[in-house]
Amino acid sequence: MSKKVAVIGAGPSGLAQLRAFQSAKQKGAEIPEIVCFEKQSNWGGLWNYTWRTGVDEYGEPVHCSMYRYLWSNGPKEGLEFADYSFEEHFGKQIASYPPRAVLFDYIEGRVKKAGVRDWIRFSSPVRNVEYDPDTEKFTLTVHDLEKDSVYKEEFDWVVVATGHFSTPNVPYFKGFERFNGRVVHAHDFRDAREFIGKDILIVGTSYSAEDIGSQCWKYGCNSVTVSHRTAPMGYDWPDNWQEVPLLTHLDGKTAHFKDGTTKDIDAIILCTGYKHHFPFLPDDLRLKTANRLATADLWKGVVWIDNPKLFYLGMQDQWFTFNMFDAQAWFVRDVILGRIEVPKDRDVMLADVADRVAREDAGKDAHDAIEYQGDYVKELIAETDYPSFDVDGACEAFYEWKHHKAENIMTFRDHSYKSVITGSMAPKHHTPWKDALDDSLESYLQN
Amino acid sequence: MSKKVAVIGAGPSGLAQLRAFQSAKQKGAEIPEIVCFEKQSNWGGLWNYTWRTGVDEYGEPVHCSMYRYLWSNGPKEGLEFADYSFEEHFGKQIASYPPRAVLFDYIEGRVKKAGVRDWIRFSSPVRNVEYDPDTEKFTLTVHDLEKDSVYKEEFDWVVVATGHFSTPNVPYFKGFERFNGRVVHAHDFRDAREFIGKDILIVGTSYSAEDIGSQCWKYGCNSVTVSHRTAPMGYDWPDNWQEVPLLTHLDGKTAHFKDGTTKDIDAIILCTGYKHHFPFLPDDLRLKTANRLATADLWKGVVWIDNPKLFYLGMQDQWFTFNMFDAQAWFVRDVILGRIEVPKDRDVMLADVADRVAREDAGKDAHDAIEYQGDYVKELIAETDYPSFDVDGACEAFYEWKHHKAENIMTFRDHSYKSVITGSMAPKHHTPWKDALDDSLESYLQN
Repeated sequence: MSKKVAVIGAGPSGLAQLRAFQSAKQKGAEIPEIVCFEKQSNWGGLWNYTWRTGVDEYGEPVHCSMYRYLWSNGPKEGLEFADYSFEEHFGKQIASYPPRAVLFDYIEGRVKKAGVRDWIRFSSPVRNVEYDPDTEKFTLTVHDLEKDSVYKEEFDWVVVATGHFSTPNVPYFKGFERFNGRVVHAHDFRDAREFIGKDILIVGTSYSAEDIGSQCWKYGCNSVTVSHRTAPMGYDWPDNWQEVPLLTHLDGKTAHFKDGTTKDIDAIILCTGYKHHFPFLPDDLRLKTANRLATADLWKGVVWIDNPKLFYLGMQDQWFTFNMFDAQAWFVRDVILGRIEVPKDRDVMLADVADRVAREDAGKDAHDAIEYQGDYVKELIAETDYPSFDVDGACEAFYEWKHHKAENIMTFRDHSYKSVITGSMAPKHHTPWKDALDDSLESYLQN
Repeated sequence: MSKKVAVIGAGPSGLAQLRAFQSAKQKGAEIPEIVCFEKQSNWGGLWNYTWRTGVDEYGEPVHCSMYRYLWSNGPKEGLEFADYSFEEHFGKQIASYPPRAVLFDYIEGRVKKAGVRDWIRFSSPVRNVEYDPDTEKFTLTVHDLEKDSVYKEEFDWVVVATGHFSTPNVPYFKGFERFNGRVVHAHDFRDAREFIGKDILIVGTSYSAEDIGSQCWKYGCNSVTVSHRTAPMGYDWPDNWQEVPLLTHLDGKTAHFKDGTTKDIDAIILCTGYKHHFPFLPDDLRLKTANRLATADLWKGVVWIDNPKLFYLGMQDQWFTFNMFDAQAWFVRDVILGRIEVPKDRDVMLADVADRVAREDAGKDAHDAIEYQGDYVKELIAETDYPSFDVDGACEAFYEWKHHKAENIMTFRDHSYKSVITGSMAPKHHTPWKDALDDSLESYLQN
């Protein structure tokens, strides 16, 4: 077989794609040649931490939005690989909210075992992709950063697995250009200890806002003020924490909010989300979608309807993560291997997209959204040989997690859940999250 | 004439190119169509200040390396446009070290007068350039960020004027990944007031180190420690300023230096220079050069020897700036207009490059380097109709400037020099630089 697949990105999605093909090969299937292009010098995507911000040593925008001391903000029982349990990796069951280094180790464990590192070209950003309808091939323009050399290579299929939590959405507020402290987006936030003793303003109310605020509180900032556009997060925050309406402007170091109140602040952390960003794709191949569960223009959430030889992994807003990427990667693999047929009729694909959008829109709350995405995962894994697992059980872990957060936002990570892969209960972690200042793998595994 | 020229970048170099063509047109010449692609939303290049760092509102790397309160670090008498004096622009002579806003206004004044803004497509990064030897045309792939649409367009000539002080060179030192304060490259430095009361470590000894250290001192940091690789800058610094050998590593907040000394620090500012970075160019068109006065592979410092339809402006290390870019832009214009002939023989061009390198290498010190670059400017303007001016006089301003810096690094900006364009002496500024905290145009012009 002389066909070739390009996988762009070696984070959790891209690595799932490599593992999917390797798994088929292991079972005796003939597979195309797989080349994975990764712009970083190591795999792991967002889980590959770097102290760098802005642009990296090659002048490329830093992919990493990861910060020090980050622990998973959802239970690991909701993201466990069905083909590689935490117990298999660590030789024992571990607590439910692992810090970054632990999750990185786990992600890496599976692909080390699969032996797919040789399929990856590191430090190799893809500059451009073009499709030629005559030859039915994609031409990728790739920059080998180590050699500082640009080359082209042809592929039969392209899988875009570059993530969508790397390119920050950075709004402007009046007075930013005269504010005398640091204005930083969550993407460039690295160490909460930089803000010890500081009064910080967080703009936004999603996961970054909740978690970066909590980190700064945990490591000793003086106060946290969170500004919301539509509604406060509404958790029972610590005493030095307040939620306020939308920032209107800055006047020196004084932040003004929509209700006329003010607060003097030392630093501003913009937790204002991320953008789908594909600067290497031309108009006819480039996904443009809102960050939602039902993306635009992807049949089954993965196949580009205008060219079904192009795929996108993990472009949805996410409750499910690693295991959903797996479900998608196995599905895409089977489309490429000809085991799953893509509708010839574009209208049929469009109808699938419209149907997904309508079903998502019909949901009322987070519970419905979790169920919706659980159903999506079930739908995909039913069509491949990805190991079946108790998706409803994973949903249960998410419902419990939401409940624990509402109960106490600073203790939810002290809870444990049951693995839906091995059935065993996670131990309680040895130290409450708020007191556990050491986020190393060694410390976390001392259970 | 249906020929087309693409100018990439609308900073001082790119704008010089537009003005050069407009000047020829004004004098009756027939000129090709000029299209200038600028990735920022306004012109001015590095002089177009933004509070943004990292990537911009479109996910593009921020071009700006400019920071608040920056005053020119060299006398304006060394950079004055020969065709547009400071007196013409401001209606009077002004003091010699203008802040950013004043220089931006001056740069803008000339091109507003020339009426070339319509030639520029803003928010339009060039993604890719390819040359087809059969058609003898370049194809540019351009991203219209406002429309989020990518298109291609053909050109007969390409002028690269994207600068080389935008992509930071960011070294790693052991312990950066565990340092509990901010690590920032000069490129992302914005406001010295962020560092009030802080002990800052600066790595590097070139202009950024000297000036950012001085800014932080001026606005009230607690102490400045500057680490050098080869030699200290050696100025007579204020009491809370020290120069130390190279940083070896960080241990928590303690910086360790090569001589075994240590210093506890709050923030690290890397003043470690910039890289020539052209991610939009393929190997056969991409300049690879050290930051030096005699660049690699450019005949007369501007013509790409492997394809003389491609030009680079301002890629040299710089004593001369705006007026040298002008000299280059007028030269490039005349090559394109067929007024100047490029050698057919690549070896002749290579010999020109080798000769420049040898002459630069023969220089002993800064004085020789200034003279060398002055000679280069003279050489180019002798071949075009760019207004002749007293280049030796500009060199004199540089020599005096060096002398004033050696005399007192915190007062050199209080000196005045004579314009080589109008012959008039600059007034003394109303407030010594170290006491002038307001860097606005309005304040500076109150002389």
